[in-house]
Amino acid sequence: MSEIAKSPAPPYYAVIFTSVRTEGDNGYAKMADEMTELGVDQPGFLGVESVRDAEGAGITVSYWDSLEAIENWRNHPRHQEAQKLGQELWYKSFATRVCKVERHGRFKPPNAE
Amino acid sequence: MSEIAKSPAPPYYAVIFTSVRTEGDNGYAKMADEMTELGVDQPGFLGVESVRDAEGAGITVSYWDSLEAIENWRNHPRHQEAQKLGQELWYKSFATRVCKVERHGRFKPPNAE
Repeated sequence: MSEIAKSPAPPYYAVIFTSVRTEGDNGYAKMADEMTELGVDQPGFLGVESVRDAEGAGITVSYWDSLEAIENWRNHPRHQEAQKLGQELWYKSFATRVCKVERHGRFKPPNAE
Repeated sequence: MSEIAKSPAPPYYAVIFTSVRTEGDNGYAKMADEMTELGVDQPGFLGVESVRDAEGAGITVSYWDSLEAIENWRNHPRHQEAQKLGQELWYKSFATRVCKVERHGRFKPPNAE
């Protein structure tokens, strides 16, 4: 994650995807890059934040302007293929939570770059 | 993060805390442990998921049964001290988003431990 996602004034929507990876790459990194590139181009996409630690636990939060935008991305044919491979190969377990962001705040110190 | 947080049927609430750490520990790890211990004991706490990568980017999502529970934890005196030190010492930048979880799904393959 290079920086914290900018987002408009609430309300907007978030998808919290929490996961634990299986061992080995098995094509995961390539597909993850492809999904990031494809995801940011979808209608209604606002931003994404993603972190994975050395033990394979990860949290990705993507932000969207509507529930319809989330639904369209969920049903995108290439994303559906990735979801199938995720269940078969890449994840020991995961949870997906669809949320309405009701309030947000940001902090950056005055002397920040 | 040892495992994905269990949570009740929606709706419930989530606080997404995304942050980028400053260099060095400066008492952060000790306070983070203390806040985790204190947080899980608060009324209305449902669960927490937290990941930080080697570059210092982190996402912590805590789950709560109400907005009131989130507000009470935000205003807890010891948590307020931690928030102040966070702005002064530990974070280059952060964002806090308060969300209503409207839908969730989980996956664990049939052969999982």
